Amino acid sequence: MDSYEELLNRLRDIDLASQIGSILGWDQEVIMPKAAAESRAEHLAWISKTVHEKITDPRVGELISELDPDSLDQIQAANLRLAKVTHDRATCLPTDFVEDFARLKSNAHHTWARAREEDDFSIFRDDMEKILDMTRRKAEYFGYSESPYDALLDQYENGLTVSRLNPLFNGLRDSVAPLVKKVTESGKQPDMTWVERSKWSESSQTRLSQRVSEAIGFDFAAGRRDASVHPFCGGPNPSDVRWTTRYDEAEPFGSLFGSMHETGHGTYEQGRPRNLDFQPVGKACGLGIHESQSRLWENQVGRSIQFCKWVLPMWKECFPGQMDDVTPEILWKSINTIQPSYIRTESDEATYNLHIMIRYELEKLMVEGDIEVDEIPDAWDKMYEEYLGITPPNHTIGVLQDIHWCMGAIGYFPTYTLGNLYAAQLLEAARGDIPDHEERVIKGDFQPLLDWMRSKIHSRGSILEPAELIKEATGSYPSPQPFVEYLSDKVRRLYDIEI
Amino acid sequence: MDSYEELLNRLRDIDLASQIGSILGWDQEVIMPKAAAESRAEHLAWISKTVHEKITDPRVGELISELDPDSLDQIQAANLRLAKVTHDRATCLPTDFVEDFARLKSNAHHTWARAREEDDFSIFRDDMEKILDMTRRKAEYFGYSESPYDALLDQYENGLTVSRLNPLFNGLRDSVAPLVKKVTESGKQPDMTWVERSKWSESSQTRLSQRVSEAIGFDFAAGRRDASVHPFCGGPNPSDVRWTTRYDEAEPFGSLFGSMHETGHGTYEQGRPRNLDFQPVGKACGLGIHESQSRLWENQVGRSIQFCKWVLPMWKECFPGQMDDVTPEILWKSINTIQPSYIRTESDEATYNLHIMIRYELEKLMVEGDIEVDEIPDAWDKMYEEYLGITPPNHTIGVLQDIHWCMGAIGYFPTYTLGNLYAAQLLEAARGDIPDHEERVIKGDFQPLLDWMRSKIHSRGSILEPAELIKEATGSYPSPQPFVEYLSDKVRRLYDIEI
Repeated sequence: MDSYEELLNRLRDIDLASQIGSILGWDQEVIMPKAAAESRAEHLAWISKTVHEKITDPRVGELISELDPDSLDQIQAANLRLAKVTHDRATCLPTDFVEDFARLKSNAHHTWARAREEDDFSIFRDDMEKILDMTRRKAEYFGYSESPYDALLDQYENGLTVSRLNPLFNGLRDSVAPLVKKVTESGKQPDMTWVERSKWSESSQTRLSQRVSEAIGFDFAAGRRDASVHPFCGGPNPSDVRWTTRYDEAEPFGSLFGSMHETGHGTYEQGRPRNLDFQPVGKACGLGIHESQSRLWENQVGRSIQFCKWVLPMWKECFPGQMDDVTPEILWKSINTIQPSYIRTESDEATYNLHIMIRYELEKLMVEGDIEVDEIPDAWDKMYEEYLGITPPNHTIGVLQDIHWCMGAIGYFPTYTLGNLYAAQLLEAARGDIPDHEERVIKGDFQPLLDWMRSKIHSRGSILEPAELIKEATGSYPSPQPFVEYLSDKVRRLYDIEI
Repeated sequence: MDSYEELLNRLRDIDLASQIGSILGWDQEVIMPKAAAESRAEHLAWISKTVHEKITDPRVGELISELDPDSLDQIQAANLRLAKVTHDRATCLPTDFVEDFARLKSNAHHTWARAREEDDFSIFRDDMEKILDMTRRKAEYFGYSESPYDALLDQYENGLTVSRLNPLFNGLRDSVAPLVKKVTESGKQPDMTWVERSKWSESSQTRLSQRVSEAIGFDFAAGRRDASVHPFCGGPNPSDVRWTTRYDEAEPFGSLFGSMHETGHGTYEQGRPRNLDFQPVGKACGLGIHESQSRLWENQVGRSIQFCKWVLPMWKECFPGQMDDVTPEILWKSINTIQPSYIRTESDEATYNLHIMIRYELEKLMVEGDIEVDEIPDAWDKMYEEYLGITPPNHTIGVLQDIHWCMGAIGYFPTYTLGNLYAAQLLEAARGDIPDHEERVIKGDFQPLLDWMRSKIHSRGSILEPAELIKEATGSYPSPQPFVEYLSDKVRRLYDIEI
């Protein structure tokens, strides 16, 4: 057995353990009995420890050093590159540091939750300071060439840096913030009476979103859907992809668009290259690209007038008598209300990226040491005033709303906006190859678009870095332009205003 | 760290891996998408390999040799004894043998299923011969002092041997076979019109069996119930016990008594001693004792007239209008029909043990080399004629009905009958401590009986060998007498005949 083969065998072994971990994680979120929480934590810790021991095995390091990338083909070289990143990241952190950080995060989760509940940032303050401190140390351990924030961004999307992100967010700030302002000033908002006057039964919401997910092309013989408090898409591999949604009988949109979002993630997972099973290159290409697939179906497709034309009869079948006076146009306007609000997860397509931009700007300041912990809440509120024109009435729906920081997931937020930008850029390119895209959507024929994503994105795994994959698929490196144009055009048509 | 502590740490690590395996196994049977079968086999193989590597680690052998049982307390010594059995069993089989046997079993599963489908024993014949051959070799590897069959029995119940089993089965044969004959000759059978005239909705069956399981004391905050094709009780540990049942809308008994059966297994698992988590002594004490807990609730309690008096109003609530003319007496007779039949899993309390006795006699002959494979089908049919007075019309519902032999699970069947005997013996002893047992059951108060089992059986884990545990709990070693008396009395009352 040569070194490459031995490395692949070891990676396969590690991947199997991780796949098992993902089944345990899904089970924990979806169906595990309450009393099992403590023992499940033991199971997951056992998996983490096993994976960590195997990836940090000195023999893995030797194999990686022995292999010469120039003697390998593209796929082999990509496997080597990805294995090296994982091995280096796992070995560069001292064991003490990893344990201390794990303990801190577990504790911070509690203080954050309590701070949020009591609307009192000071409860979380000390842990947040420690998290920032350890996060900066982590960036030093990982290493970086320009900003320490680069080392953190790279965890969630390989090759992502501040110097790549700045132009993207600048483009958004210059275009989207004024757009939102214009909509707000116009004072126009759609009539939502038809939504508010009805109760939206959970079983009908399930039926509707199931039919839509099937139409998009999610394969339910190789996956499943369930309900969970925090919707997500998981599962061990392309043969077993599991997504969840949640229901609110006061409004019918959350479960439908949530289902389309997770269906997008799910189709990506189901479309991964099976000949690269158990290999790093066979995995999805980072969080930004993943989010592009969910946002594509949720927003670019799901919130289009063409989709509304196709789906409205289905709505009416699922909710008989509740929507007799609703036209595709009314549905379309109702699902595209643009309005500054406090909560990121409930925000619309336009303001969403401003929520992310604020977090990005704050994280840069934090990681680069340009802001004190005590200044964060005020800075948060000021940025909301500046970019969204609103000031959070409290910290619960302000600076304490997201779970990410108490989990130490600094550098994660930007991938949400990357997903939106990539989705627009990919759809623009796909439309070049599918000239009758809009007519297809009106007919509910999503096959050409799914096929395009299968061949350009899903089947490419992690062979390329994300920015290179976008370039290969669309002809250009990531840019905010397609998204800005898409959004401007949509807002103009929705609100009948000059941009 | 001393040797005992190091051994415990290693056993804990192994147990965690096994617990994870049991979650994967449950998922596979209950909710896994179809397409995931192949990848799930990889996950389970990974767990098996990991557990095998850890239990056969030479260091485990060293620790076991180093430890002196005389320097340990009762619990420590039991852990050592159980660890030694597991380690020895795992190390005594050559790797080639284990791999060949695994392959053979996988293949035999297919030939058995095809043979059964086509009612043609010859399709399975060659694999059955190989399974017998390898099973005999396995018995030699394990070692035994009297019969090679002892080495196989011991796998499912520590300390079980032919010389212990023979008197039990002889007792049954001499008493139960004539009993069944008398019932058959009496020509009396209950009127089942009330069952046949109705459709029994799955949702009502679910409601009824859920209420019964809760009343018995299964803790649904530390477990769950689901539907599956093959009912079972699994889950990783006492905080997460999962049982399943199946439904047939043509009759309402299967799901109820199946649920009570699995509830019995489930209460045992939930009652295991938590201070012995991750230790061999904290585990259930073999399959016979496990089956005693399921049979206790399914039969000894569930098919009693007192239980019928308590549960009938619940039946009537769940199935309104379907049972207006049913009395507790009618219900009791309907669920206790005694009638020789071909299929073990569908047989009644009396004939069930004759089905098992036939398999026990055949397995003894097979393992001791006193029967050729080609003679098995005829021997089967002749024993059915002799003990049950019926001859199977074909092999599908005859010698090919059970999955156990193609799985290499020879030595397993007797634990089913042990369960029935133990259940009767345990209930007899419990009634000594709970003089108003019958009145309690009429009121649906199962707490005293569950508490008795908790203290005498569940909380004792595997500290004692099964026969010793029965002795400790009841004052006598296992005996067929309590079961025979219970059954004779019941049959006399049911059929109004002289025994």
